[in-house]
Amino acid sequence: MPNIHLALMHYPVLGKRGEEIAAAITNLDVHDIARTARTYAVKAVYIVTPLTDQLEMVDKIRRYWISGAGSVYNPKRKEAFSILHLRDSLDAVTADMERDGRGAPALVATSARGRDGVLPFERFKSMLADGRPYLLLFGTAWGLSETVFQRADYTLAPVAGPGAYNHLPVRAAVAVVLDRLQGR
Amino acid sequence: MPNIHLALMHYPVLGKRGEEIAAAITNLDVHDIARTARTYAVKAVYIVTPLTDQLEMVDKIRRYWISGAGSVYNPKRKEAFSILHLRDSLDAVTADMERDGRGAPALVATSARGRDGVLPFERFKSMLADGRPYLLLFGTAWGLSETVFQRADYTLAPVAGPGAYNHLPVRAAVAVVLDRLQGR
Repeated sequence: MPNIHLALMHYPVLGKRGEEIAAAITNLDVHDIARTARTYAVKAVYIVTPLTDQLEMVDKIRRYWISGAGSVYNPKRKEAFSILHLRDSLDAVTADMERDGRGAPALVATSARGRDGVLPFERFKSMLADGRPYLLLFGTAWGLSETVFQRADYTLAPVAGPGAYNHLPVRAAVAVVLDRLQGR
Repeated sequence: MPNIHLALMHYPVLGKRGEEIAAAITNLDVHDIARTARTYAVKAVYIVTPLTDQLEMVDKIRRYWISGAGSVYNPKRKEAFSILHLRDSLDAVTADMERDGRGAPALVATSARGRDGVLPFERFKSMLADGRPYLLLFGTAWGLSETVFQRADYTLAPVAGPGAYNHLPVRAAVAVVLDRLQGR
């Protein structure tokens, strides 16, 4: 099974006018992306934000579904939330992965906009066979900040439909990317 | 361009114990599915529920983004909502399509569970070239009621990941199905 991990970045991301911001966490992102990632056999989902109160809020939600009343009401949701982790930075995510023996992941940024030298899906699929850990980076708000692309090892080819309009919610983009990599 | 339409069914769908229910509309379904459908060049999205107060609520949201303050704040959202329609039944949707000259659509149900004789994606993709109108049916809650499958002309092959866990949110399933049919 490919060694795929995913980080939903709330910082550093772009605001409406292209400025760097810390975006608010959307509760439904957490639920949807955990369920979708679990369906496509992603090893771990990291919700990344430096905002401590937001991390605490999501941890409360996570505990409700992992060990609270939610775990009895909906065991499938419990299974989805079991791969969810909360971290305050991308550094903290990669440090965790190295510390627990998974090794330093290759960072694969995603963007709805084209960039020079993007990684085609077919090539990424063949790379996944090497067993190396990969960390897919998705940006909330108006997308990942330039500093994330500079740091990433690869930027995945953008997902698009047949026309010029291209405004997928991040929840939908995650589903489409994972299906292209792991769908059957 | 393929002649694809989509209906998000809130009735008749299944509840947690397999009983037939009318599900509540989720605001984010409306936003996400409108944006995703517009990205994949879907002609029209129908939100279907017999609950009048819910239709009125969504119409208020729709008007905010089409002609209210939302249309100025976010013109891309306006474009997404411009393909959104509200109807009280599947009959009302097909009657509309016949009345305005698009013709009676072939009904294509979707399900996360396998069924006998499902339509493979590759075959559906080749059928789309015939220009005939197709209406994709997605169920909210625990999925479409059996009566919808009985009425449908086809049931599309289920979308799945590599393992046994398969609990995509309907918002994610819509994105994956449309990407498989129309992605590039």
